[in-house]
Amino acid sequence: MPKLDVAILGATGAVGQRFIQLLEHHPWFQVSEVIGSQRSAGKAYAEAAHWILNSNPPPDVSQRRVKALDEPITSPLIFSALPKEAAITRELELAEAGHIVCSNASANRMLADVPLLLPEVNAEHIGLVEVQRRKRGWASGTLIANSNCTVMPVVMALKPLLKYGVRRLHLVSEQAVSGAGYPGVSSIDMIDNIIPYVPGDEQKMESESRKMLGYFDGEQIETLDMLVSATCTRVPVLDGHLVNISVELDEGPAQASIIDDWTTWQAPDPIPSLPSAPPYPLQYLDQIDRPQPRRDRDAGRGMMTSIGRLRDCPILGYKFAALSHNTVRGAAGCSIMNAELLAVEGYIEGVQIAETAEAT
Amino acid sequence: MPKLDVAILGATGAVGQRFIQLLEHHPWFQVSEVIGSQRSAGKAYAEAAHWILNSNPPPDVSQRRVKALDEPITSPLIFSALPKEAAITRELELAEAGHIVCSNASANRMLADVPLLLPEVNAEHIGLVEVQRRKRGWASGTLIANSNCTVMPVVMALKPLLKYGVRRLHLVSEQAVSGAGYPGVSSIDMIDNIIPYVPGDEQKMESESRKMLGYFDGEQIETLDMLVSATCTRVPVLDGHLVNISVELDEGPAQASIIDDWTTWQAPDPIPSLPSAPPYPLQYLDQIDRPQPRRDRDAGRGMMTSIGRLRDCPILGYKFAALSHNTVRGAAGCSIMNAELLAVEGYIEGVQIAETAEAT
Amino acid sequence: MPKLDVAILGATGAVGQRFIQLLEHHPWFQVSEVIGSQRSAGKAYAEAAHWILNSNPPPDVSQRRVKALDEPITSPLIFSALPKEAAITRELELAEAGHIVCSNASANRMLADVPLLLPEVNAEHIGLVEVQRRKRGWASGTLIANSNCTVMPVVMALKPLLKYGVRRLHLVSEQAVSGAGYPGVSSIDMIDNIIPYVPGDEQKMESESRKMLGYFDGEQIETLDMLVSATCTRVPVLDGHLVNISVELDEGPAQASIIDDWTTWQAPDPIPSLPSAPPYPLQYLDQIDRPQPRRDRDAGRGMMTSIGRLRDCPILGYKFAALSHNTVRGAAGCSIMNAELLAVEGYIEGVQIAETAEAT
Amino acid sequence: MPKLDVAILGATGAVGQRFIQLLEHHPWFQVSEVIGSQRSAGKAYAEAAHWILNSNPPPDVSQRRVKALDEPITSPLIFSALPKEAAITRELELAEAGHIVCSNASANRMLADVPLLLPEVNAEHIGLVEVQRRKRGWASGTLIANSNCTVMPVVMALKPLLKYGVRRLHLVSEQAVSGAGYPGVSSIDMIDNIIPYVPGDEQKMESESRKMLGYFDGEQIETLDMLVSATCTRVPVLDGHLVNISVELDEGPAQASIIDDWTTWQAPDPIPSLPSAPPYPLQYLDQIDRPQPRRDRDAGRGMMTSIGRLRDCPILGYKFAALSHNTVRGAAGCSIMNAELLAVEGYIEGVQIAETAEAT
Repeated sequence: MPKLDVAILGATGAVGQRFIQLLEHHPWFQVSEVIGSQRSAGKAYAEAAHWILNSNPPPDVSQRRVKALDEPITSPLIFSALPKEAAITRELELAEAGHIVCSNASANRMLADVPLLLPEVNAEHIGLVEVQRRKRGWASGTLIANSNCTVMPVVMALKPLLKYGVRRLHLVSEQAVSGAGYPGVSSIDMIDNIIPYVPGDEQKMESESRKMLGYFDGEQIETLDMLVSATCTRVPVLDGHLVNISVELDEGPAQASIIDDWTTWQAPDPIPSLPSAPPYPLQYLDQIDRPQPRRDRDAGRGMMTSIGRLRDCPILGYKFAALSHNTVRGAAGCSIMNAELLAVEGYIEGVQIAETAEAT
Repeated sequence: MPKLDVAILGATGAVGQRFIQLLEHHPWFQVSEVIGSQRSAGKAYAEAAHWILNSNPPPDVSQRRVKALDEPITSPLIFSALPKEAAITRELELAEAGHIVCSNASANRMLADVPLLLPEVNAEHIGLVEVQRRKRGWASGTLIANSNCTVMPVVMALKPLLKYGVRRLHLVSEQAVSGAGYPGVSSIDMIDNIIPYVPGDEQKMESESRKMLGYFDGEQIETLDMLVSATCTRVPVLDGHLVNISVELDEGPAQASIIDDWTTWQAPDPIPSLPSAPPYPLQYLDQIDRPQPRRDRDAGRGMMTSIGRLRDCPILGYKFAALSHNTVRGAAGCSIMNAELLAVEGYIEGVQIAETAEAT
Repeated sequence: MPKLDVAILGATGAVGQRFIQLLEHHPWFQVSEVIGSQRSAGKAYAEAAHWILNSNPPPDVSQRRVKALDEPITSPLIFSALPKEAAITRELELAEAGHIVCSNASANRMLADVPLLLPEVNAEHIGLVEVQRRKRGWASGTLIANSNCTVMPVVMALKPLLKYGVRRLHLVSEQAVSGAGYPGVSSIDMIDNIIPYVPGDEQKMESESRKMLGYFDGEQIETLDMLVSATCTRVPVLDGHLVNISVELDEGPAQASIIDDWTTWQAPDPIPSLPSAPPYPLQYLDQIDRPQPRRDRDAGRGMMTSIGRLRDCPILGYKFAALSHNTVRGAAGCSIMNAELLAVEGYIEGVQIAETAEAT
Repeated sequence: MPKLDVAILGATGAVGQRFIQLLEHHPWFQVSEVIGSQRSAGKAYAEAAHWILNSNPPPDVSQRRVKALDEPITSPLIFSALPKEAAITRELELAEAGHIVCSNASANRMLADVPLLLPEVNAEHIGLVEVQRRKRGWASGTLIANSNCTVMPVVMALKPLLKYGVRRLHLVSEQAVSGAGYPGVSSIDMIDNIIPYVPGDEQKMESESRKMLGYFDGEQIETLDMLVSATCTRVPVLDGHLVNISVELDEGPAQASIIDDWTTWQAPDPIPSLPSAPPYPLQYLDQIDRPQPRRDRDAGRGMMTSIGRLRDCPILGYKFAALSHNTVRGAAGCSIMNAELLAVEGYIEGVQIAETAEAT
C-alpha cells in the first residue's frame, strides 16, 4: 500500500526529531520532506540535526536534504514543530495553500476556528474544520493544533470524570527538560536543582484545558466553565510530565468508581483502532509511589496516560497524580494521531488506510 | 568561656552528621559524646560514620569513640537524630534522667506536652516545658522537638500572614533526597526520575503545621483551625525542600503588603541574637524563577527561608513557593537554635552564654 | 513448540529482574520458578520484588510464589543472579544435582574448570564443560559463568584485534549505578558527584579479561599474556558502562583497518542466529562524541557493543571508547545467550529449538 | 587601605561571575568595571547577567552598568574571562595600552612570550614578563595567562614529583559541566548520560602541561620533555574536574614517599601568604573512594587540589586521582592569585598590599 508523503516543519528540533522517529514505521505516512532553519537548509539531515534521541536518525531521513522554511512543499500532509514566532503565519499560509497542517506549535492554538484536537477527548471538535474552511474560504487545507504537553495528562485524566461535573482544578506540574526543546535548559540549572517556573505554561494550562474539554455546538467551541489554578515547575527528568492534580466535582463518586471509570475508559470508534492509539488510553497504577516519569512514560509506546495516588483532598475533594510522555503523547504522537483521525474521517485526500481503521 | 558538653544521639546518620558539622564552631556548645548503633559502638567516629557531607568530619570528633545507645550519657544537653523506633522510649528516659533533650525525631512530636518548637514562630510554646515537667514529675530534664523538615518552610512563610486569618492551605512539595537519610533513596530511583510519594510526610504536613501555629494557653496547645491538603514528592536534589503553597486568607491584603510582611519580619528579642538565628528569617526573591534549591538553600547559613513567585491563585487567592534547607533549618539547625533559646531562657543549667544574647 | 522451564536464582534483585524481563517473550525458555531470599520466600513475586525496571513485571511472573533458596528446584535450566556469598556453594550443588546453571555471580568465575563464556568471543571455551564434568564426576549438570559487566565491552572490542597481538591495555571505566544492584548506590553519593572507585572491579578487569581471551587447549584455559591496568569509577548514569581504552598492539594496523575489523566482525555459526544475538555484535560510531550511555546502550536490544573515538595514543598507540549495556549484555542477556549456545550445542536435554538456529 | 580598581572582561559569563564572587571581599582588589557583550552593554549587571552561582551577585556589582568590549577601561588591572575569539586581539591591545591583563582565555596561552602562570608550580615564569615587554615594546602592561581548568589538578599533583623524573603521563578526565560555560552543556545531554569528548581539551592537556612544567631559561620556556596521552570526558557534575592519572617516573620512590611529598609540599615565599593561597596546596585523602567532586572541590576555599587512590599501575608504575575546582583553582581563582603574585613582586603600580605578603 503506497504511503502518503508528509513534510516535517522544524524537523531538526526536539519535537521534529520525535516526529521522524515515530513515523519511521508508520503504516500510512512516510517522511518525504524535512524543513529546517536557514542555518540547516541545504545540509543532509544527519548533518544538520544534533540528534538528541537514542541511537541515530532513520537512514533514509539521515540523507535527506533539509529544505528552508520558504521553499515550496509538495507533501499534502504537514506536521509542524516550528517555534512559535515562525509558526504564526507560515502554518496558516500552508493551510491556505491546501495542505493539511497538524501543528504542535502554540502560535495558533487559541484561534477560535482552530481545533485543539485530542482524539480520545474531543474528536467531535474536528467539525470545526468545516467552520474554519468556510470562514477562511479554504477548499481543502486546514490547520489543526494539539495542546501544550503539560495539559495532556490533565485532560486525559479528567475526560472520564466530566460526567460528575468538574468545577475546580488545582495543578502543580513537575516537567521534564525535553519540554523546553534542545538545547533548552542548561545542565548548570538542572544538576542538584529544580526551577519553580516554566515560561508560559501556567497560562496555557488554564486556557487550553478549558478549550479542549469544551463543547462544540456546530459553530464554535464553548469552553468548559471550570476554575483552574496551575503552577508549573521544571525537574531534572528527561521525558515525562507529571501533574499533581486536586479536583472538585459536583457529585461525590466513590474513589473506586473513579478508578473504574479510568481503567475501563475507551474512546468511541474508530479511535481505538487508529495506528497510534493505545487500546486503553489510561492506566491506573496501584503502587503508592507511582506514576514515575522514567518508569511509566513509555506505557502504550508513550501514548498512554498513567494515573496513581487517588485519595481525599481536604480542600477540593479528590487528588491524584497523572503522567504522560511529553514529546510523544504530549507533542508529536498526538499530532500524528490527529492526522490519523483526519485520514479516517476523510479529510485527507489520497491517503490509503487499512480497512480495520476506517470510519464506520 | 567554657562550653557546655553535648551528646549527639544517632550521630553517624545524615542528621547526626549535620549536628556535628553545625556545632563545630558553636560559641556555647561542644560535642563531647557521640552515640550510635550497636554496629558503630566502640569504633572511632571517623571509622563508624560514612561521612556524607563535604570534606571530612572535624578532627576532634573523628577520633572520638562512638558509644552505644544504652551507655550512660554525662552531657547535660542532648541532640537526638535517632530513627523513630529508637527514639520513642530512649528520649523520654533521658529527659526523665534530667537531660535537656532537643529532638529531631518524629517519634514524640505529637505528644500533647512536647512543644514543637521553632523559635521565630512559636517561642512561647516553650512554656509547655513547665507543664511537661509538672505532669511527668521531672525536675530538670525536658524533651523538646522540632518539626518535620518539609513543614518548616511552610510555617515560616505563614507566620507573618497569620494576622490575615489563614483558612485553607494547599501544599505540593518537591523534596530533596537527604530528607530520607543515608543511604535513603537509591540512585536507581532518582536518576531521570521523580517519586510522587514520601512516606508519612503528607500526614505530618497536615498535623504538625497546625500544632506549630497553634495557641499555647498556659496549659496546652490549641491547634490552629486550618484546613491543610498536602502532597509530597521526591526529586533528584541533594538538599533543600521546596513547597508550592496556595493559601486562602480571611482578609485580602495586597500582594505588596504580604511581601513587605515577609521581608521586614523579625522575631522578638532575644531570638534574632541567638547564635544560629539569621537577622531576618525570610527573604523574598524577585526573580521569577526563584527560589531554587541549589541556589537558595544556603541563605543565612542554611537558616533562612526563601520565598518567591507570589501571585494570584484562582482558587484559594494567593500562591507562592517557599524553600528551606531541610537538614539545617529543617532539622539539626533548628534543634540547635531551640537549645539556644532554652539556654537564654534559663532552662539549661551550667551553660554560659554571651551577654548580648541573654534574655531581657 | 513447548518451552523449557527455567528457574531464576536471586530473582528479585536488579539482575534477576533483567532476566525476567528478557525472558518474557523468549522463543525457547520460560520462567517457571523464581527463587529469592528468606525475606521474599512465600510472597507473590510482584509483592516481594521492588521492580526497578520500567513498567511492571510480566503478569504471569507477578503472581508466581517466590521460593526460598533451599527449596527443591525442578527446572532443568537455572539462571543465577545470586549475591557472591550465596552463590559459592549453591551453584555448585545445583550443577552437581544435574542442572544447567548459567551464572552471573562472581563467586565461581575464576575456578579453573568454569568457563567464562561470551559466545562471540570464546565459544570454544564451552569444551571446558566436558573437563568440568569429568573432573567432578557430574553426569548432566554444569556451571557456566559470564564475566563482570565492565569487562564485557573491553573483550568485545578487543576480540577482532587479537590478530594484531594485544600486549598492553590501559582501562578507565565510567560505570552506571545499576551495576551495584538495588538499592546499591545512594542518591546522596550520586547527585552532582562521581565516585572514583568501584569495589572489586579493577581486579576483575585485569583477571577476567585475560581468562576470557585465553586459549582453551582441550584441558584448560591458558590465559592471554597481556598487561592490564584498570581504573573503575562510578558515574550518575542508570545503565551502560563506558570504558576508555588505550591499547598497545604488536603490529601497527591503520585505524581504518581496525574500524573495518570491528564493523564487519561476526562470530562463526551458529552464534549469529541465536535468539539473543545481534547480527553484528559491534558498531563503530563516527560522531566524535559517541558512544554515550543513554543513547547507545540499547543498540541491538542491549546486546551490541558500541565503539567510538579511535585515535592515536602517544603512549600505547591506539585509544578508543567502548560501551555495553551492563545488565543486558553485561549480565542477564549474556547468561541467556550462553544458555542458548549450550542448547544449540546439545548440552541441554529436552530443550526444543527452532531449526534455523541449530548447530551445523 | 584603598583597594586597586579592577575590570572584568566577559563579566556576565560563568567564569566572569566567579571572578566577581571571589573578589567580593578581596583585601587588595575591588571590581569597578564589568565588561560584557554588545547585548549586555548598558544594562545593570544584575539584569544583564543570568547569575548561575548560589545566591545573588554582590549588591554593589549588581547595580553597576555593563560596558561594551570596545569602551575605554580605566582600571589598571584587568581579569579576562572572554571567549577565545574575542580574547585574541583585545587582550593584547589592553596589555599594550598599559594594563595588567590576567587572562583565563585560551586564546593567547601558547604564545611563546606569555607565561602560563600557576604560582605554586612555576612562579619563576613571571620573568617572561620582562621578555614580553622588551620584545613587544611595552612599558608597563603585560598579559599573563592561566591554563585550561583540567590541566590544573594534573600539574599541581605532578610538581612535587618532578624530582623523580616524569617521563610518561596517561590522563582520563571526568569534567564538570561548568567548564563549558553557561548555558554550555544542555541538560538533555547530561541526564542519565556522559559525553566521552570535550572539544579541544585533550590537545590542551598535552601542550599546556608541558609548558607549565617547563624551564624558564631567562629568555624562553623550554617545555618539559614528557609524553602525554589525554582523554577528556564530560559527566553530570556541576563543579570539579577529576583526572585519573597514570605516570611513569625515572626513579621508583615508595608510595609512602610520594604521599609525603604531596602532603608536605609548600610553595616558596611569598606564595603561601598570598590572599588566595591555601597554606598547603595539596591534600591526600586516605579514604579509598576519594577525591569526589562534590565533597572535595571546595577544599581550601576551592584552591586546594585533592589527591587519592595512589597505587601501582601495571603499565606506567603509579596511578592516582586528582581533583580541583575548575572555576576557582582552574580559572578565576588562579587568575586572581596570579595577579596577587604580580602585585607582591612589584609588577602592578599603585596597588597597596599588606606587609605580611610582601616579597622578601
